[in-house]
Amino acid sequence: MTAPPDRFAAASEPATATEPRRLAAIDLGSNSFHLLVANYQDDRLQVVARLGEKVQLAAGLDEDGFLGEEAMSRALDCLARFAPFLEGIRRGDLRVVGTNALRDARNSQVLIERAEALLGSRLEIIAGREEARLIYLGAAHAVAENGRRLIIDIGGGSTEFIIGERFEPLALESLRMGCVTFTQRFFDTGEVSEKRMRRAELAALSELANIRRPYLQLGWSDPVGSSGTIKASAAVIAAAGKGPEGIITRQELMDLRRQLIKFKHLDKVAMAGLKADRSRVFPAGVAILVAVFEAFDLQQMRFADGALREGVLYDMVGRNSPEDSRLKTLDGLARNYRVDGRQADNVATTALGLFDQVREAWKLDDDQARFLDWGSRLHEVGLAISHSQFHRHGAYLLEHSDLAGFSRPEQRLLAFLVRAHRRKFPVKEWQALPATERRPHARLARLLRLAVLINHSRPEQPPATPRLAADGEALHLTLAGEDDPALLINDLEQEAAYQASAGFSLTPSRA
Amino acid sequence: MTAPPDRFAAASEPATATEPRRLAAIDLGSNSFHLLVANYQDDRLQVVARLGEKVQLAAGLDEDGFLGEEAMSRALDCLARFAPFLEGIRRGDLRVVGTNALRDARNSQVLIERAEALLGSRLEIIAGREEARLIYLGAAHAVAENGRRLIIDIGGGSTEFIIGERFEPLALESLRMGCVTFTQRFFDTGEVSEKRMRRAELAALSELANIRRPYLQLGWSDPVGSSGTIKASAAVIAAAGKGPEGIITRQELMDLRRQLIKFKHLDKVAMAGLKADRSRVFPAGVAILVAVFEAFDLQQMRFADGALREGVLYDMVGRNSPEDSRLKTLDGLARNYRVDGRQADNVATTALGLFDQVREAWKLDDDQARFLDWGSRLHEVGLAISHSQFHRHGAYLLEHSDLAGFSRPEQRLLAFLVRAHRRKFPVKEWQALPATERRPHARLARLLRLAVLINHSRPEQPPATPRLAADGEALHLTLAGEDDPALLINDLEQEAAYQASAGFSLTPSRA
Repeated sequence: MTAPPDRFAAASEPATATEPRRLAAIDLGSNSFHLLVANYQDDRLQVVARLGEKVQLAAGLDEDGFLGEEAMSRALDCLARFAPFLEGIRRGDLRVVGTNALRDARNSQVLIERAEALLGSRLEIIAGREEARLIYLGAAHAVAENGRRLIIDIGGGSTEFIIGERFEPLALESLRMGCVTFTQRFFDTGEVSEKRMRRAELAALSELANIRRPYLQLGWSDPVGSSGTIKASAAVIAAAGKGPEGIITRQELMDLRRQLIKFKHLDKVAMAGLKADRSRVFPAGVAILVAVFEAFDLQQMRFADGALREGVLYDMVGRNSPEDSRLKTLDGLARNYRVDGRQADNVATTALGLFDQVREAWKLDDDQARFLDWGSRLHEVGLAISHSQFHRHGAYLLEHSDLAGFSRPEQRLLAFLVRAHRRKFPVKEWQALPATERRPHARLARLLRLAVLINHSRPEQPPATPRLAADGEALHLTLAGEDDPALLINDLEQEAAYQASAGFSLTPSRA
Repeated sequence: MTAPPDRFAAASEPATATEPRRLAAIDLGSNSFHLLVANYQDDRLQVVARLGEKVQLAAGLDEDGFLGEEAMSRALDCLARFAPFLEGIRRGDLRVVGTNALRDARNSQVLIERAEALLGSRLEIIAGREEARLIYLGAAHAVAENGRRLIIDIGGGSTEFIIGERFEPLALESLRMGCVTFTQRFFDTGEVSEKRMRRAELAALSELANIRRPYLQLGWSDPVGSSGTIKASAAVIAAAGKGPEGIITRQELMDLRRQLIKFKHLDKVAMAGLKADRSRVFPAGVAILVAVFEAFDLQQMRFADGALREGVLYDMVGRNSPEDSRLKTLDGLARNYRVDGRQADNVATTALGLFDQVREAWKLDDDQARFLDWGSRLHEVGLAISHSQFHRHGAYLLEHSDLAGFSRPEQRLLAFLVRAHRRKFPVKEWQALPATERRPHARLARLLRLAVLINHSRPEQPPATPRLAADGEALHLTLAGEDDPALLINDLEQEAAYQASAGFSLTPSRA
């Protein structure tokens, strides 16, 4: 009997191989929420479930930037419908991200806490450029062809523009214009007219003016659009029997624009291929698309599925591996701001030596070790701005920089560690943290503070790590016999006083 | 008859040469105020008057960081005594700078406004590193020898450490420790003891730990000390007939320390060579000096006169010339943060073209043109942090960076221009400016805003500058005939709305 062909062997593999890892991503967009569940095995994602709902979160923002109760209920109802699909997925294999509407909402923390309670998972707001990076990651996996691509994703509150080759983005931008917010700004009365379309287009062109020339200079061979507006445009064109499926030509887009104006009112917009729940925000979306064609002088655009949520899944696969995009980001930051690498390494070594001793008592996990390590490596980043108050400058940089791979809560943790690493413990900033972050973040900050003091004299090698024990929040630090610990003891006495004024107990002693 | 030797010709020169330029500097230190008046001619400064008074401003700071009325009166009385020496000195040839006590005082603006009214001149707070740079500039002119020098200046509230060669500083630091503030912290009861001296020294060593190793690595051949504490130490040692005049050896310093402890109380400190108004802050100053000797393992130090105020005079001479240290600083900033030079140039060209048209109506001067130019060249500096809110990030960098050559009010102007250059006019930040700065700064900011819009599409060359006329605060902008000004007109309409919400009138029209 001959051996079975390879493909049979492959076909029988699932039975004997390890179970595939099940991953899920939820994307709380300004217009729609999406859930994507997939199995990951052999370097590939196999989609298990894909859901989407038009929650129109951005439409629920009032003039002062507060999310209304109704919009919050719509959001939570939708998440409740997503929840059953998440059963059996491990913590760490689900990522929930929020974009522009949540970036803008001044009370987003209220929704975040309720959603986290409902899903039993963190909800992380991500910055515009991080959104663009993840969209590209998703699109790059969805588009087979090589060459330089322009990816455009028109969302409810922001539109992302990415030029990249293979899996490498070369330019990432997120502009504050989207089909929901532009509907509110330019079609607030419901009227659809040439004049109103043009005003929306000019506003979009004004946003685009900032990136137009550098993007044209980079160039591309293949413009690709993702997201609802572009999908709907392609569908309407296809439903009218024009052109090949999934391609939007300039002429067909201008035809579409003319037809929309003829409807005269948002409530009357109805076209074959256009879903009813998209119709009211469609004219604004088309206005943005027209401006994009105009600014970049496009002749056609191809629709490709695969966007933010796909990117989130691919990103999750790479996390906590040598390919973790966050490592490259931190390296770049340390290099750009010329961080003293030796001191950073020494402080990290000491910090992790202290961490290990209280890991059990404080129930700390690997992820926290990672952030303490990273915070140690960046605690002096603010020196590039000024020595005076450099802990504040470093925190500013970590909070506000575009850090590829990091969500906002992650940047907030890094920023807090750096802010809190010296001088008075920043009680005000600490109390401004979300309630669930206060205790764990303070613990890491206190470990970093001690590590910095122990390495205060900037030695070539980190000194022996003192013994550390935690009793509740109280810390006991025991110095080993040293040559001349007078300076360190003086520093630790000052530190005990700093911690005491923040309500923490630190007891230094000598062995 | 033979020709007279050269030196005679030189001696007769003053009669025929132009009048020397008279310059003055006032330095409002934490312990003393100083006035220095000098004639500048043939690249040399000739001192005309030198005054100093122990105002002890830092001692007037209460627990919450507010300057008391009594300290303010002492300060203003002293300045009133300086004022007669300033007669005939031109605006721009007097510079008044404040250091640590004014940096720390939360109500320093009150004193600044009263002092400015009294002197008829700006009072500029300078940052610690800028103070260090100016001290070095002064000391470098006072010390004839070449080689690498360490300059130490123990002030009332801060101590500066500079390593440099010739006129080039290689390392600049300002640490928050001084003879007045350390007297308050460690000798608050008046008691002088071994224990109290050591605690003050350990606190100084703790501050020094941050810079000790990098400074030792740079190295020096000649440690030089300036300022009152070091002058007094040298004077006491000389009065006791020990060692050569102006040299402090380690052994003599330790002797001095022992003698001070024997007095047991600040009120009893009295030594030959020590002025009565220095005696109460002398032990704290000596403690800092002892820590400096310990940290840097010094065997001796030489006293040299010539410090901050001398540096301010030399700096003034270089200002607004090609050697203006500010130009180098701005170049470095633009390079470090990778500012798009072409766009910066184009915006600057347009901004200055607009400036010239309203210069007369708005009574603008060369200094304002310079800052509008610099603000234009740096308006995109915040892009290095993130595109989102980059005007805020740029303002943060300009406000907080150590910018050699710039005073705080100058940095505040640059930061405000960058903060205000796009989106809503920042009314809150604008109203937080000192009253005298509000109108002139808003005018420059409005010119920059227009220049940015005119160059919005990032053209290769700046477009033709539109006509601009000012009628009071109202601006009328007339566009020249252009190919397709739709985008610019749309931008200008939005801009007119932004300016209107800040209470300004802008009327755009087409020729």
